[in-house]
Amino acid sequence: MIDNPYYGRETQGEFELYDLGNLVLEDGETLRDAKLAYRNFGRLNAEKSNAILVTTWFSGTGKVMADVYVGRDHALNPDEYFIVVVDQIGSGVSSSPQNSPAPQAMAKFPKVRIGDDVRAQHRLITEHFGIERLALVVGGSMGGQQVYEWAVRYPQMVARAAPIAATARISHHQAIFVDVCADALMSDPGWNGGWYRSGNDVRDGLDRLARIVATLGWSPQFYQEERWRSVLGMSSSDDFINGVMKAYFEPMDPNVLLCEMWKWQRADVSRHTGGDLPTALKRIIAKTYVMPISHDMFFPPHECEADCALIERAELKLIHTPEGHMGLNGFEPGYISQVDEHLRALLNN
Amino acid sequence: MIDNPYYGRETQGEFELYDLGNLVLEDGETLRDAKLAYRNFGRLNAEKSNAILVTTWFSGTGKVMADVYVGRDHALNPDEYFIVVVDQIGSGVSSSPQNSPAPQAMAKFPKVRIGDDVRAQHRLITEHFGIERLALVVGGSMGGQQVYEWAVRYPQMVARAAPIAATARISHHQAIFVDVCADALMSDPGWNGGWYRSGNDVRDGLDRLARIVATLGWSPQFYQEERWRSVLGMSSSDDFINGVMKAYFEPMDPNVLLCEMWKWQRADVSRHTGGDLPTALKRIIAKTYVMPISHDMFFPPHECEADCALIERAELKLIHTPEGHMGLNGFEPGYISQVDEHLRALLNN
Repeated sequence: MIDNPYYGRETQGEFELYDLGNLVLEDGETLRDAKLAYRNFGRLNAEKSNAILVTTWFSGTGKVMADVYVGRDHALNPDEYFIVVVDQIGSGVSSSPQNSPAPQAMAKFPKVRIGDDVRAQHRLITEHFGIERLALVVGGSMGGQQVYEWAVRYPQMVARAAPIAATARISHHQAIFVDVCADALMSDPGWNGGWYRSGNDVRDGLDRLARIVATLGWSPQFYQEERWRSVLGMSSSDDFINGVMKAYFEPMDPNVLLCEMWKWQRADVSRHTGGDLPTALKRIIAKTYVMPISHDMFFPPHECEADCALIERAELKLIHTPEGHMGLNGFEPGYISQVDEHLRALLNN
Repeated sequence: MIDNPYYGRETQGEFELYDLGNLVLEDGETLRDAKLAYRNFGRLNAEKSNAILVTTWFSGTGKVMADVYVGRDHALNPDEYFIVVVDQIGSGVSSSPQNSPAPQAMAKFPKVRIGDDVRAQHRLITEHFGIERLALVVGGSMGGQQVYEWAVRYPQMVARAAPIAATARISHHQAIFVDVCADALMSDPGWNGGWYRSGNDVRDGLDRLARIVATLGWSPQFYQEERWRSVLGMSSSDDFINGVMKAYFEPMDPNVLLCEMWKWQRADVSRHTGGDLPTALKRIIAKTYVMPISHDMFFPPHECEADCALIERAELKLIHTPEGHMGLNGFEPGYISQVDEHLRALLNN
């Protein structure tokens, strides 16, 4: 185990841990004494009909979702809804490589799939909160992959679904890109097969990852217009790479990021239907807003459109933001106001 | 010096070497006993008015340009034109890190800029062939960067210019991407600061580069539609990465690729005008067809459009090909027929 303060309460704020006991994973191993981190806002009404589940993306935790997406000014308003923000397994806060004891610590942390997360979240929602139907499941990127998994796996439980900047099945393009990201970490001799003493030993790999993520995570327009000035307050391209991208990844745990990458790369709701994506997406009952980001190079709008066309009660709601995929972090106010507008419409639908 | 057969005549076909003597480079060093590789097709007419110069891209040599772009079926028809295809300096065939003797061998090969190439090419064209005006300068990607440099540096000599899939100044986005590419090679311990015994010692780095180039070199549509089947005859994403991308880069010389990357990353015609791009592009007299590729993620169409708007006699000719930047290699017949159509129109203009 590594005591990385980035994943502690001083950095992440308050959260609860739900005890899952031994969680048998899709790939066969059992995650012992598994814990799911969550934080909740607002009050569950008597009918238990106002619950919203918010999922997390790659490298993100519940904190960014709570900070950017939840609040009285947002569609996810705790005055109206009971909002549960849940950290994915392997994210550093829930059970993860760096916080698990032997024999599942570090490089021996088992392989986890999106389906494992969603089954764990289902137990939190049903067993702990006694909720039988969610008014909305919403998340971006890997969080959106979890939204799709919820809507296909538990169709009766999901009244509304909002996958933001995500597809129901990983694309070949992105699978290759994730290989590049994983290689960036594993090629650092300091990674040492996953048995480093501190994440700082893998700083070169983390910096390499930061630069790679920068090339697809932000759009060419972001760079062309030097939006790091207006949006992020950085003075140059180098200042942006060092002060934003490297600063973002450096405090993180490399095995955590690799665990999430493995999961990200295999997200695919058609695992429920022998590889048949149209049949999998036909299972979705939820009123669904498919919400791509206009300049996204991870999950390009045309790929999200293709999913949308296969879902019965789905509408495409394109979010215009020249940042690209990283716009998800809500750096630019125009982004979150579009998301809020669509989510309000969906919740009133 | 390394005897790498990839850059020899068995692989590259016949070419000539023009002796430049000592070439004083923009960054101050002198490239001793410099050689410029070229091959020519067709006959120079008596007025010397039918000469076309064809430049090369990153990792490419004169052979691919001759094979794909030149021929009786193409606009670059040797029955009508005198066509000179020239290899850029540092490309492996012209004077380059792996074929230069000490003290400029390998890691000590000097830094070369696009402007150095164009000055060397100018000497070949004027001193060797006695040509005072080129009917057309055409090239793709880094070849297009050379086209822009020609049109700005020697405006009176360039009657027509056709930069394909290129911009006049490197974008921030691409500069970061090239950093990622260079790091892929240099992070391989086998690279050893540039002092490997054989390119094979850097195979991991070359393979890493191959996968990175795959993520931006081919478009998301290429991957979504699994066009490696129809266009390249490969059976899967892995088959494509191994059998096309890695197979392409593995025989190459790492220092050659790094030399070209350094040059690629710094291409900027506004060096002539103190950083003022509009003023630099105003110098262009040539009738110019700016020819972006529709799905290009290296040089996106909107960036090429921005250049086009700054050139007096320029027209935008978008080439539609879902391959993205790598479409330049002419894998798909639809690509080269569009290029030919535009170049014929330009040559008749």
